[in-house]
Amino acid sequence: MSDQQKYAVRFVRPVVDVVSERYGDGYGPAISNNQIIDHILMHRSIREFTADPVSEKDVRTAIAAAQSAATSSHLQSWSVIRVSDPENKHEVNKLCGRQGQIMAAPLMLIWLADQNRNYEIGEAEGRPREAFDYFESTMLGVVDCCMAAQNAALAFEALGYGTCFIGAVRNNAALLADRLGLPKRCIPVVGLVVGRPDPRHETDIKPRLSQDIVLHEETYRAVEGDEIDQYNRVMNRFQQKQWLSTVNWSSKVAVRLSTRTSLDGRDRYMDFIKSTGSGVR
Amino acid sequence: MSDQQKYAVRFVRPVVDVVSERYGDGYGPAISNNQIIDHILMHRSIREFTADPVSEKDVRTAIAAAQSAATSSHLQSWSVIRVSDPENKHEVNKLCGRQGQIMAAPLMLIWLADQNRNYEIGEAEGRPREAFDYFESTMLGVVDCCMAAQNAALAFEALGYGTCFIGAVRNNAALLADRLGLPKRCIPVVGLVVGRPDPRHETDIKPRLSQDIVLHEETYRAVEGDEIDQYNRVMNRFQQKQWLSTVNWSSKVAVRLSTRTSLDGRDRYMDFIKSTGSGVR
Repeated sequence: MSDQQKYAVRFVRPVVDVVSERYGDGYGPAISNNQIIDHILMHRSIREFTADPVSEKDVRTAIAAAQSAATSSHLQSWSVIRVSDPENKHEVNKLCGRQGQIMAAPLMLIWLADQNRNYEIGEAEGRPREAFDYFESTMLGVVDCCMAAQNAALAFEALGYGTCFIGAVRNNAALLADRLGLPKRCIPVVGLVVGRPDPRHETDIKPRLSQDIVLHEETYRAVEGDEIDQYNRVMNRFQQKQWLSTVNWSSKVAVRLSTRTSLDGRDRYMDFIKSTGSGVR
Repeated sequence: MSDQQKYAVRFVRPVVDVVSERYGDGYGPAISNNQIIDHILMHRSIREFTADPVSEKDVRTAIAAAQSAATSSHLQSWSVIRVSDPENKHEVNKLCGRQGQIMAAPLMLIWLADQNRNYEIGEAEGRPREAFDYFESTMLGVVDCCMAAQNAALAFEALGYGTCFIGAVRNNAALLADRLGLPKRCIPVVGLVVGRPDPRHETDIKPRLSQDIVLHEETYRAVEGDEIDQYNRVMNRFQQKQWLSTVNWSSKVAVRLSTRTSLDGRDRYMDFIKSTGSGVR
């Protein structure tokens, strides 16, 4: 049995209930089913890892997956930094809210919206570079970058790894950019930690909002009646099963977005973007 | 043979050369291989479709896939609008640069960074809503939204559909938001058209930059020497095979980003974001 198979067996759980788990008991829509759909639906974040490394070949596979995502106007406006040197990871972790999963994972990838490369190409081609002044050029890099990162996460999971995205790369973005030697017009968007899931810490599929809330027909429809309360009940049942506190999801959302302090430094993210010369107009 | 199988047979091509095609002959790294990796690597954009509709069950499947992506702090800060009514699609198309693939596809999904829902939750919970003033809340919605959209695209492809992302939803974002009845703090990020690929228009896997250019080790490394020229040669070979013009990729990048005009209205995108009350500070 190969390493990949061994970990896959540990990591993968019966597929039959996956839609029901994703929406809470009995709430899932009828869906079409195949191995790829099942794989995507089985995602959950992993924060506890074994000491096993991520092989070079698997990193290269995930990057190939990332690069296979669509890219706006074929501009390929992103880069990714591999952080696996323990000293570098230790320093990066200090800037990212000191999260256990960063130190536990053998590998951290930091995904960048990168218009530096294209700016330098424009310069070498002797062209004006007006578009770089506008937020659109930054936005385009962010969109490209997130789609690439998502592909990489799915590829790692397909190789039996667990992953967790790290929004905290935006907490101290200016210091992180210094640490990583980022050039102008290049900003950290999201991190991804990767490793073999520690089998002693099984995690469950976390329920999501009903499809009727997120999918709108032809025009936008605001939530009505007790739609959010229904989801609170779904989440409370899930939390109970995990022996976790049953504070309503809606209360947690409200608290998370109530104060500037809860942004953990990300209230300075736009200032950071401006400081890199990225388009914000 | 089911519809799904029939289209899959038409759509899928031999996997053996996929890495080599993705990087141009002989340039691909050694990668790990399985059905899910192959699927991700096989992506290419499809712009010509048959008249066959996208089934309700398949849309629901893709939305379940989208919702299975990670979501920052479990805030689920995105929505998606299904545009399939021909009249609505016609009007949307006018605002998105009148692209053939929008009218050719039976379905268009418009992915939204949506902090409206969470803002209303905060209001209902009687909490202050300071975080919504900051760009981080908008950014978080954009990141969530793009990862969800990428999952949906992969799910559609796994069901034998072709897809094409539409950045032009940002061309006339204010008018599009009116058309779709978007509330405050809710912005179109990217569109996705979906349909059965027209087998008369085969498309090839488009080569990407070398991994050594996009993957940086521990810190950022700028491109050196003739790395971009090497890629120009890869792309020129690809274009030649397609009987397309062989203008250098780097020239096309430079031209695309040279003027404000080339943004097709997206130079007003930040003004639009501000007008919705989304956080920009």
